Amino acid sequence: MKIILIGGHGTIGKTIAAALAPRHEVIIAGRNSGDIRVDITSEESVEKMFRELKTVDACICTAGTGYYGDFAAMRQQHMLPGIQGKLMGQVNLVLIGKDYLAEGGSFTLTSGVASQLPAKNGTCVAMINGAVNSFVLGASQELKRDQRINVVSPGLVEDSGERYGALFPGYNLVPMQRVVNAYLLSVEGAVNGRIIEAHF
Amino acid sequence: MKIILIGGHGTIGKTIAAALAPRHEVIIAGRNSGDIRVDITSEESVEKMFRELKTVDACICTAGTGYYGDFAAMRQQHMLPGIQGKLMGQVNLVLIGKDYLAEGGSFTLTSGVASQLPAKNGTCVAMINGAVNSFVLGASQELKRDQRINVVSPGLVEDSGERYGALFPGYNLVPMQRVVNAYLLSVEGAVNGRIIEAHF
Ligand SMILES: NC(=O)c1ccc[n+]([C@@H]2O[C@H](COP(=O)([O-])OP(=O)(O)OC[C@H]3O[C@@H](n4cnc5c(N)ncnc54)[C@H](OP(=O)(O)O)[C@@H]3O)[C@@H](O)[C@H]2O)c1
Ligand SMILES: NC(=O)c1ccc[n+]([C@@H]2O[C@H](COP(=O)([O-])OP(=O)(O)OC[C@H]3O[C@@H](n4cnc5c(N)ncnc54)[C@H](OP(=O)(O)O)[C@@H]3O)[C@@H](O)[C@H]2O)c1
Repeated sequence: MKIILIGGHGTIGKTIAAALAPRHEVIIAGRNSGDIRVDITSEESVEKMFRELKTVDACICTAGTGYYGDFAAMRQQHMLPGIQGKLMGQVNLVLIGKDYLAEGGSFTLTSGVASQLPAKNGTCVAMINGAVNSFVLGASQELKRDQRINVVSPGLVEDSGERYGALFPGYNLVPMQRVVNAYLLSVEGAVNGRIIEAHF
Repeated sequence: MKIILIGGHGTIGKTIAAALAPRHEVIIAGRNSGDIRVDITSEESVEKMFRELKTVDACICTAGTGYYGDFAAMRQQHMLPGIQGKLMGQVNLVLIGKDYLAEGGSFTLTSGVASQLPAKNGTCVAMINGAVNSFVLGASQELKRDQRINVVSPGLVEDSGERYGALFPGYNLVPMQRVVNAYLLSVEGAVNGRIIEAHF
């Protein structure tokens, strides 16, 4: 398969890339890293990326994040970058990319455990993850030409424990292999419209 | 209780108002209707409303909607009004209103069954409802002064069957009393951080 992996130089993305590389052609995209430069917040940039790729069999996105901070002082302005990035960025990939994705191809987006179990200070991220999950349920009913779409909902991965662990007291670290498997299930398997949980 | 009900002249809102009026002071707000004019997409307008109210014991929101339309042609621009309205409008009410809400007061927001079971052409609405649900899970952990927050997730209510039924083939019509009860459970009960389902 020819696979585009947006965010493929990030913590989770690079491990997915390593797992897929022996069997597939993996093209990595990011704002400041990767084989292709793309900013998923921009429809033009996403359109340009897919035009250059011509066609792909799978599109995986592990790009994007959301605001963590004191709820008492949180306002719309803090939440907008995450809405534009992790939420609408991933939505852009699907709405634009479906016309370039091959027959039988798949999208795999990323949400996170926060949609069900928000961390303290993490209400913005929870909201974005909940939105991505429900978007995927809807989109999976609408895609044509046997295209599939799933979303992986990771918990805090072990590789991020040092960097983010203090923000998530009591969250079990998830083995990276378990998270990577969730992506493989979506890309190489046959599931559709699933929120694939890799947490708890 | 002194209750502000945004969207209180709408289909669901007016029935909630009628149910609460015998026991409480109910103030209705809307863009073009109600005792107070407010546009929840504007932080300034929301701030102004709460300043005028001084304090309230409960804030209910049944305002907002989302885009329905052909998925193949859907783009970010179609989704933004719903994100600004039903999603960030309700978020604004909480982030700003919590400083005006009385000790022990409650917020009750509205999502919808689409977060779990999106209708054809309803992926945008599904996404927004999923976001509101997860926002409430997070916010319920953060509110201070014994404040509570819940979200009611209605199915298609019987009063809307004629207007919207054709968009929702196979969705059972939900008795309005069941939907109103969900709001009463949140406002007059003691639950917190609950997605109160009034569907299936
Ligand atoms: N790590 C965890 O434990 C964990 C847990 C739950 C959920 N998640 C979710 O999993 C996803 C990946 O997490 P991660 O820790 O691997 O993230 P990460 O290390 O920060 O990597 C994210 C990658 O996305 C790219 N990126 C960011 N914004 C972009 C944009 N607008 N356009 C294109 N590329 C963009 C970045 O590359 P450039 O800087 O080159 O753009 C970066 O390489 C995120 O959605 C995160 O919320 C992670
Ligand atoms: N009806 C159903 O069967 C059903 C099913 C599932 C979910 N829901 C959800 O339940 C909620 C209420 O539905 P409904 O059918 O009762 O809606 P509705 O009849 O359209 O009423 C919505 C009310 O909200 C007000 N409003 C809209 N945008 C606003 C804004 N930006 N600022 C302030 N007020 C605003 C409108 O009044 P003005 O025009 O005066 O502003 C209107 O009275 C919506 O979130 C809907 O998605 C409804």
